Amino acid sequence: VVSKLPQTGTTIFTVMSALANELGAINLSQGFPDYNCSPELIELVNKAMKEGHNQYAPMAGVMALRERIAEKTEKLYGAVYNPETEITITAGGTQAIFTAISAVIHPNDEVIIFEPAFDCYAPAIKLMGGVVKSLALEPPNYRIAWDMVKRLINQKTKMIILNSPHNPTATILHKEDIDELSALVKNRDILILSDEVYEHLIYDGETHHSMARYPELQQRSFIVASFGKPFHATGWKVGYCMAPAYLMNEFRKVHQFLVFAVNTPIQYAIAEHLKNEDTYLGLAEFFREKRDQFRKGLEQTRFELLPCSGSYFQSVSYLGITDEKDADFSIRIAKEFGVASIPVSAFYSKGIDHHVLRFCFAKRQETLDKAVDRLIRI
Amino acid sequence: VVSKLPQTGTTIFTVMSALANELGAINLSQGFPDYNCSPELIELVNKAMKEGHNQYAPMAGVMALRERIAEKTEKLYGAVYNPETEITITAGGTQAIFTAISAVIHPNDEVIIFEPAFDCYAPAIKLMGGVVKSLALEPPNYRIAWDMVKRLINQKTKMIILNSPHNPTATILHKEDIDELSALVKNRDILILSDEVYEHLIYDGETHHSMARYPELQQRSFIVASFGKPFHATGWKVGYCMAPAYLMNEFRKVHQFLVFAVNTPIQYAIAEHLKNEDTYLGLAEFFREKRDQFRKGLEQTRFELLPCSGSYFQSVSYLGITDEKDADFSIRIAKEFGVASIPVSAFYSKGIDHHVLRFCFAKRQETLDKAVDRLIRI
Ligand SMILES: CSCCC(=O)C(=O)O
Ligand SMILES: CSCCC(=O)C(=O)O
Repeated sequence: VVSKLPQTGTTIFTVMSALANELGAINLSQGFPDYNCSPELIELVNKAMKEGHNQYAPMAGVMALRERIAEKTEKLYGAVYNPETEITITAGGTQAIFTAISAVIHPNDEVIIFEPAFDCYAPAIKLMGGVVKSLALEPPNYRIAWDMVKRLINQKTKMIILNSPHNPTATILHKEDIDELSALVKNRDILILSDEVYEHLIYDGETHHSMARYPELQQRSFIVASFGKPFHATGWKVGYCMAPAYLMNEFRKVHQFLVFAVNTPIQYAIAEHLKNEDTYLGLAEFFREKRDQFRKGLEQTRFELLPCSGSYFQSVSYLGITDEKDADFSIRIAKEFGVASIPVSAFYSKGIDHHVLRFCFAKRQETLDKAVDRLIRI
Repeated sequence: VVSKLPQTGTTIFTVMSALANELGAINLSQGFPDYNCSPELIELVNKAMKEGHNQYAPMAGVMALRERIAEKTEKLYGAVYNPETEITITAGGTQAIFTAISAVIHPNDEVIIFEPAFDCYAPAIKLMGGVVKSLALEPPNYRIAWDMVKRLINQKTKMIILNSPHNPTATILHKEDIDELSALVKNRDILILSDEVYEHLIYDGETHHSMARYPELQQRSFIVASFGKPFHATGWKVGYCMAPAYLMNEFRKVHQFLVFAVNTPIQYAIAEHLKNEDTYLGLAEFFREKRDQFRKGLEQTRFELLPCSGSYFQSVSYLGITDEKDADFSIRIAKEFGVASIPVSAFYSKGIDHHVLRFCFAKRQETLDKAVDRLIRI
């Protein structure tokens, strides 16, 4: 068969986690916790199963969960979404992203993405016959040069993909970015796909500039979020997409034939769990402690720390240590020092390598300490 | 936005289940049980969660589950699949079907489907720019006229989609069909997508002619199966795809960016559950009893029963009762008699209406009896 994605290999997350397992290395590569999710949440899933919530959920998701999401969104960002027509539960953030792209990108449509970019955006665009227009951002701040974005825009530009807090760079959008973006899309038919799966993981008193805060952006946006990341259960694969009805209508046309519906008992459990807002409002503090502890440890190493304003990733530059390629260095650290990371060049399409590695700090204190002890030896 | 699926409305399953709920009608429309799955299986999920299996599964699925599937497939059908490279766990059969189509259908490729056809095939093909070539089959036996299939084949034919036991018609492929199919694809570059989610639900001593039984077909096939249907947990959304490595390689390129991975604790639970082969070998007898009971009841109605050789659906013709359209009649029965069904015209693209309704009999004895009591009054 002729490959539809000839340049695509196995995602870096699978490659690095497999290597970590094989080596018995501390796995700070793929983003997931090494501690369990809350026993209350597990018990809620168990209860839902015992009560018989094991058959197909409604195609758009369990209504109680959609209602909790609408309430949370209105409370946090002021936007009113109709759970009936504007919120759909998905099998994780990835499925939401793939579905949104599939639903609106026609052949030859152009989509602007910022690199380093989460690795699922470009293949989804290409599969739909779309054209990826990428703008490469630079460490340490990875700021978007909006005048450069403007130059990429033309009649074929259909969508801009944003991601804040940003994976892998841990940067966030600021109010100035929002202003620039608003000016740019004004009077243009450009949609926004806003990947906000780390919405609650934001530090140092910064604000999460959700597209849901800005009506003129909100009305053209698919907003994607996840429960796996905030609730420490990345393996449950439940997320959601919010969009105004005219976009959600197209989203669901694809969703219904792509996956139909999402795990039922977990939807019931999360709907119940969300009733207590502490379950997500406490997350920033929980992860800030881990970030601070990990950064303090890394300061003892030869790495240079990059800023971390959000997400649960910490990037470091190793410019002063070696001129190896980041992919090679990352593998060597896993093999020789027993700590797995993600080489950030994996998120650039054109082999750009700033000699930056990404570590996940959603780990127990002792795991982070042990990793630091090993990294100090480099 | 310009719709990519302008002719597509909401799937009939959502429409009819919503109507049934609204009316409080007995829901024999969408295919799912009205009894709970086994308490042992629920406890296995609970155990997996408590043991901490709540983070990302491997992209291709939990290895223990892939191994059980390989063993089961070899035992039942004689085919040897390598769990490492040839089996992938999916978020239900629907996601497997969408992914297989996405992975290999290029713009202008032609795909042959047989109508009535499960409603997710055509939209997936169209989204990829493929062309649907459908052959309409006729009640009561819905036999495939292979000489007609031959006439549909040309240089652009990329795939044939099969489904046995068949939803919605409850027919099965016979050995003669396999022979015709084999002759047809021989020396041609045609792939097969074989939707076998009802593999264990086959009656009257008939054989399930899985593509996995026939090496010359197996080597060009994506075989899709599900755990939701056999294990009475349609809401868990776990299925799988098997294909030779050269096809599975392309499948995973899409799968990794479409959903990445599938619910982890449920994969562990099913891997454990599958160790006992009675969990699936007993299914045919379990559902045969329901089929026989339901058919006996329906014989007292004015409907004419169509054959049921597999699946958990029973179709009836109402030619002698009214000349209403099946969509109208189906809604009227739900409203006036309190039983929801699926009008089979929903599975034909060209509005073909043979005046056939489909009922799901995966229901408790009392539910089926109560439904029959109501249907007798028509
Ligand atoms: C989809 S697996 C990757 C998980 C993740 O978000 C990350 O590691 O960046
Ligand atoms: C994907 S919902 C439909 C379930 C089913 O298989 C059917 O009712 O035919």
